[in-house]
Amino acid sequence: VNANPIAVFDSGLGGLSVVRRLRELLPGESIVYFGDTARVPYGSKTRRTVANFSLELSRFLLQFNPKLIVAACNTSSALAMDVLKRELSVPVIGVVTPAAAAAVRAASEAAPGRIAILGTEATIASDAYPAAIHALAPQLEVVPVACPLLVPLVEEGRAADDLIVRLAVEDYLAPLRKRPASVAVLACTHYPLLRESFARFLGPDVDIVDSGRETSVEVARFLEAERILSPAAQAGSMRCFVSDNPARFRRVGSRFLCEEISDVALVSAEEYITGPLVERDAS
Amino acid sequence: VNANPIAVFDSGLGGLSVVRRLRELLPGESIVYFGDTARVPYGSKTRRTVANFSLELSRFLLQFNPKLIVAACNTSSALAMDVLKRELSVPVIGVVTPAAAAAVRAASEAAPGRIAILGTEATIASDAYPAAIHALAPQLEVVPVACPLLVPLVEEGRAADDLIVRLAVEDYLAPLRKRPASVAVLACTHYPLLRESFARFLGPDVDIVDSGRETSVEVARFLEAERILSPAAQAGSMRCFVSDNPARFRRVGSRFLCEEISDVALVSAEEYITGPLVERDAS
Repeated sequence: VNANPIAVFDSGLGGLSVVRRLRELLPGESIVYFGDTARVPYGSKTRRTVANFSLELSRFLLQFNPKLIVAACNTSSALAMDVLKRELSVPVIGVVTPAAAAAVRAASEAAPGRIAILGTEATIASDAYPAAIHALAPQLEVVPVACPLLVPLVEEGRAADDLIVRLAVEDYLAPLRKRPASVAVLACTHYPLLRESFARFLGPDVDIVDSGRETSVEVARFLEAERILSPAAQAGSMRCFVSDNPARFRRVGSRFLCEEISDVALVSAEEYITGPLVERDAS
Repeated sequence: VNANPIAVFDSGLGGLSVVRRLRELLPGESIVYFGDTARVPYGSKTRRTVANFSLELSRFLLQFNPKLIVAACNTSSALAMDVLKRELSVPVIGVVTPAAAAAVRAASEAAPGRIAILGTEATIASDAYPAAIHALAPQLEVVPVACPLLVPLVEEGRAADDLIVRLAVEDYLAPLRKRPASVAVLACTHYPLLRESFARFLGPDVDIVDSGRETSVEVARFLEAERILSPAAQAGSMRCFVSDNPARFRRVGSRFLCEEISDVALVSAEEYITGPLVERDAS
């Protein structure tokens, strides 16, 4: 038993869809969340910048003595996990490995053994998902699909039945008409809010893997193995920190968390900007 | 005559559409540009954050001894002009005042005397355009229209004939069906690339004001009045700096500049991040 919190960071508010799953599965755990709303989004940025930003967020969170840090942002998980694991003194769990493992399990039982990865520009360009999948199952085929518009569409409050959302999903997923997948990974924390759109396009036979849900299962497994679970009897607390715009975070974020967000504090630049940790040539 | 450059900053690459107009009108001027591609976009962020970021970019540009600084970003111009003018020792020209003045001139000759402002979430929320317009012509009606999706649509390379672009434009501009405007201001540096889309929706009787074009006219007027124009006989140079991803800047940016971009340098965080200059309560 360990009453320290689980620390979660994200480029902005999308990681709240991961927190939602954590709170469902591990109601006794306290959560401390840091969303980098001053520099969001990460999905169009380089490995070096994403790694530096992710480290700054993580170091800020260390002051809360977390049990572990969850990199809820798919882009951070895809581009910065090696740096985070090397630089941080606490365990770090990203969303890519658990989601890739779940996709492999689902695809291994299906035909065709083909997995679609739906993500941001940077996540797709990183090839992190194909690498994680092929490390487990080299024979599976991976179809990477960058869907840059879907994050702003979700942030704007558009839902699965919106015409523009439907057209964008059809447009991005068109390659899957010729090469149908049996599994689709929602490799961005914003996409669970469009799950219905994807399901409608993909049809009932395609397994949809939610990276947030799989990550919460992985976190539970880790806490149990380490015997540091908090008892579920007493409800865990939740504190949020943002680098900008707490009002917008509260308003838009509650759709991701599926509950009201009360405790949000603004963090000033001098409290989390430590300067570059990853040098230019590491990019 | 003054051979020092014109400094231009922007949240990312959109400001290149302003530079395009500057280079057309003032081919003898050298330009030094700083795009904050590590923290782009500004359009969903608060006044305090946008002011701090804009000041950091401006201070970096001061090392080139510019004749003046152009805040090419509409969001910066709408949220940070007072801070920039107060803190910087060189003249600063933003895009809001010139565009508002042009809109007033056009609307004063038309009926109805109604001006639509098309911009980002933050530009629209700031009310900077209505304030600038009403300072000149209190009787004119202003219809503010936030169009958050249009920036990512343009960045993705979608053009005026794209179905999603057309639907988004129709969706955002729907309020103008009931309250038709005689002038529409493209109050975001990305929007000139969708000019044709707007024109198609608005029809031939609506004057479209391009904030970049009006700003370049204002810059020319200022340089002439101060007698610091560079002779047009010799072509001015152009250097670009970005806080992230020079490759993407070169690729996507050339569509905004309408010429190839050769000279782009990456600036590290320690070279431009000076920490917060505007305190929390100034927000």
